[in-house]
Amino acid sequence: MAENKQLGKQSIRFAHPPFIRGTASIAGTKEGEGPYGKYFDEIEQDPTAGSGSWEEAEGKLQEKAAGLAIEKAGCKIEDIRYIVAGDLLGQLMASSFGLMKLDRPLFGVYGACSTMGESLAVASIITEGGFANNVLAVTSSHFASAEKQFRFPLGYANQRNKSATWTVTGSGAVVVSASENSQQENGQVFVTGITTGKIVDYGVKDSMNMGACMAPAAADAIVQHFIDFGQTPGQYDKIITGDLGLVGKDILIDIIRAKGYDISENYMDCGIEIYSDGQNVQSGGSGCGCSAIMLCGYILKMLKSGEWKRVLFVPTGALLSQVSFNEGNSVPGIAHAVLLERRD
Amino acid sequence: MAENKQLGKQSIRFAHPPFIRGTASIAGTKEGEGPYGKYFDEIEQDPTAGSGSWEEAEGKLQEKAAGLAIEKAGCKIEDIRYIVAGDLLGQLMASSFGLMKLDRPLFGVYGACSTMGESLAVASIITEGGFANNVLAVTSSHFASAEKQFRFPLGYANQRNKSATWTVTGSGAVVVSASENSQQENGQVFVTGITTGKIVDYGVKDSMNMGACMAPAAADAIVQHFIDFGQTPGQYDKIITGDLGLVGKDILIDIIRAKGYDISENYMDCGIEIYSDGQNVQSGGSGCGCSAIMLCGYILKMLKSGEWKRVLFVPTGALLSQVSFNEGNSVPGIAHAVLLERRD
Repeated sequence: MAENKQLGKQSIRFAHPPFIRGTASIAGTKEGEGPYGKYFDEIEQDPTAGSGSWEEAEGKLQEKAAGLAIEKAGCKIEDIRYIVAGDLLGQLMASSFGLMKLDRPLFGVYGACSTMGESLAVASIITEGGFANNVLAVTSSHFASAEKQFRFPLGYANQRNKSATWTVTGSGAVVVSASENSQQENGQVFVTGITTGKIVDYGVKDSMNMGACMAPAAADAIVQHFIDFGQTPGQYDKIITGDLGLVGKDILIDIIRAKGYDISENYMDCGIEIYSDGQNVQSGGSGCGCSAIMLCGYILKMLKSGEWKRVLFVPTGALLSQVSFNEGNSVPGIAHAVLLERRD
Repeated sequence: MAENKQLGKQSIRFAHPPFIRGTASIAGTKEGEGPYGKYFDEIEQDPTAGSGSWEEAEGKLQEKAAGLAIEKAGCKIEDIRYIVAGDLLGQLMASSFGLMKLDRPLFGVYGACSTMGESLAVASIITEGGFANNVLAVTSSHFASAEKQFRFPLGYANQRNKSATWTVTGSGAVVVSASENSQQENGQVFVTGITTGKIVDYGVKDSMNMGACMAPAAADAIVQHFIDFGQTPGQYDKIITGDLGLVGKDILIDIIRAKGYDISENYMDCGIEIYSDGQNVQSGGSGCGCSAIMLCGYILKMLKSGEWKRVLFVPTGALLSQVSFNEGNSVPGIAHAVLLERRD
């Protein structure tokens, strides 16, 4: 096979980069009230999305995002050859129930909050390899289903510490397409490369400090990306992590500085951005949906408009399970970097 | 991209099929005492695999299977460019903790008990697309971690009904490699195609009858495979599902017969095979580990020896979550078909 696609230790540079044909972002009310509210396609006003459980509600967000992304891509459902999807819930409940009606071949993926990066990476591999013309990558999170899965019943009204993050309610969906499909490649955004993350565990056991759990994995993927692609931080308009929050941000910048790179000038974290100071979210936003709706709602629009030309998108996941946590285990992290570039 | 790889509605026929370079099967004691015990590479005598929890024990099985498959493939860990892995537990605990030490880029996947099919499919796509020379596909299940996750505490000593299955303790790992690597292609087993499953829901709500939950999805994938490849059941030495068990088997054969195909002559189910009548397992074995150790321990050996030339391997998954089940939802199914062929 063409080994030249394989770049360095952990990366791929796509010979025929697939492009982002359509996107959709469905956000919750709190996210709609935040500083990026105007960028999201739709704000779901009902926290249960008209359904009977938080898990089903999250599935409904995926269903809406998937449908809208396909529509905005100018596709029919039948044009989508594969769906690559996942979420935070046990056994990917939101994806299983939310995407069933689409009736398409499905690869379920799990990378905790890095799932948008993983699903985009797998979708790009499938597309660039010639195995599909259009692949849908979807993910989601929901504040209430995540609290129920990982923390305490909402009725307890637990206090949150300063390092805690607030799980974003929202779903993002992207149609990744083979570039031959594009009638006009100019002005499109392409997935030009990926750097796939490894599980990194610094032994952090505090489930209320996910930023600290994930920062080492993010640093590992970002630095490896620089090495594999032979690049430096200044060559990106933005380097954007998923949901490290205020605590994780400082740790990330410090670890990367210790490895010889300074990303502080063009660094951004979706979790820090998505809520405003007054929204009482402690360290910031988190969840698969956080980076997903920021990607589909804001980041890709900034690239499409030409404001940015080259972005390293690095969703970050904390491999937290309530069972492993209760058994006293650490919370390892993983991060999947995706290189997004606009072609003029 | 080369559209000719895309076959029919849901399939891929690989232009340059990757081959199975190495495999490993680690089984529990009950599986070791079954009729296929002699085929497994290793029988783990300690149900906790020397660790402090069932989840960690399952991770240890993955770690052992991964290490042995890499060794048997004649590879070093560094030769493995990606791992594609998953398990049944919430947030893929066994894979996250079991494979961390390998320190390789990881795509986490979830397809319930169909995971061996999904991980093999994704590994083959990555390899055939030229994105890696060697990819490791791993999965596992453990009787005790699965009972804890999905059913009742073992100490309750609940009675099991006739349609219930027994979760296999075991892990299977496969090194999938680009065929240019092969010094001697003759006598090797190749992944020549895949048919990726859709979520199929017939509304079955009985978590003690997983065979009935999964059979419609298996039928859907198998029939679509015949259509996409233009084949009939007689053209396969064996058509092998994952873990439908005795109840699911009858349903599967009936559904497929109603669609115009008769697979009864060359059909086999790993769940029915793995235990003997006297082992008190009701409808049969189940779990990701069931089809995984049967594949790595037995099926691939039958192909390698030339006893079989062409096998359709169809691991079957029930997208069961204890949360969605307790909320009164049905248990949808998914199945991923992988076409394995020996080249002389």
